[in-house]
Amino acid sequence: MASAEKIREVVNSYVASVATGTADDVLALYADGAVVEDPVGSEPHRGKEAIRGFYAIIEPLEQEAELLTVRIAGNSAAFQFSLVTKAGDQKFTLAPIDVMEFDEDGRITSMKAYWGQDDMVIG
Amino acid sequence: MASAEKIREVVNSYVASVATGTADDVLALYADGAVVEDPVGSEPHRGKEAIRGFYAIIEPLEQEAELLTVRIAGNSAAFQFSLVTKAGDQKFTLAPIDVMEFDEDGRITSMKAYWGQDDMVIG
Repeated sequence: MASAEKIREVVNSYVASVATGTADDVLALYADGAVVEDPVGSEPHRGKEAIRGFYAIIEPLEQEAELLTVRIAGNSAAFQFSLVTKAGDQKFTLAPIDVMEFDEDGRITSMKAYWGQDDMVIG
Repeated sequence: MASAEKIREVVNSYVASVATGTADDVLALYADGAVVEDPVGSEPHRGKEAIRGFYAIIEPLEQEAELLTVRIAGNSAAFQFSLVTKAGDQKFTLAPIDVMEFDEDGRITSMKAYWGQDDMVIG
């Protein structure tokens, strides 16, 4: 099982990469065969090709992210982070709670993101 | 599927009941056959009798709880709450992130709590 320290490190890398890294930076944190369900209730992205496509959509956006809180238990982490997207004069802020599972090397095997349309703050 | 409003209401009832209600108050929010894993990585409590035993342990404690953040997606909720336990002059504060799934009537079918021993604050 990955250590809590390793899991915490990967969560930090994930939050930084989602905002300012490339899709490949994010993808490097995932295990082969990983599954991403974002938001929960939507059709999951299964495997690295599908996951790459998902993160490629937000790659060109101007974004800032901040890890707000993280809890680690067993081979899993739950954390909330804020992701601010700038488009011209507007800012779109979303602060989902994500749950991840990790393999023994600390690669993400599953990610589920909990948020709804009502959680998007436009300002 | 339960509405987001119903899920939010049950989450609020759960947080209040855990702190100041009876084990039966908490149990009333669960569906038959529900599974509780608290913390994630520990042996799950399966079914209402096992779940009742779990909450009976904290029933006599003097506690205060506050819902800090909640995100609802599909038939699920992820939320962080603080639970302060008073024992004499000491306070033990734990702020886990819980993930719940709900049936169509808004009863909890599964609960997973993400926290580690390091997250317990003694003061």
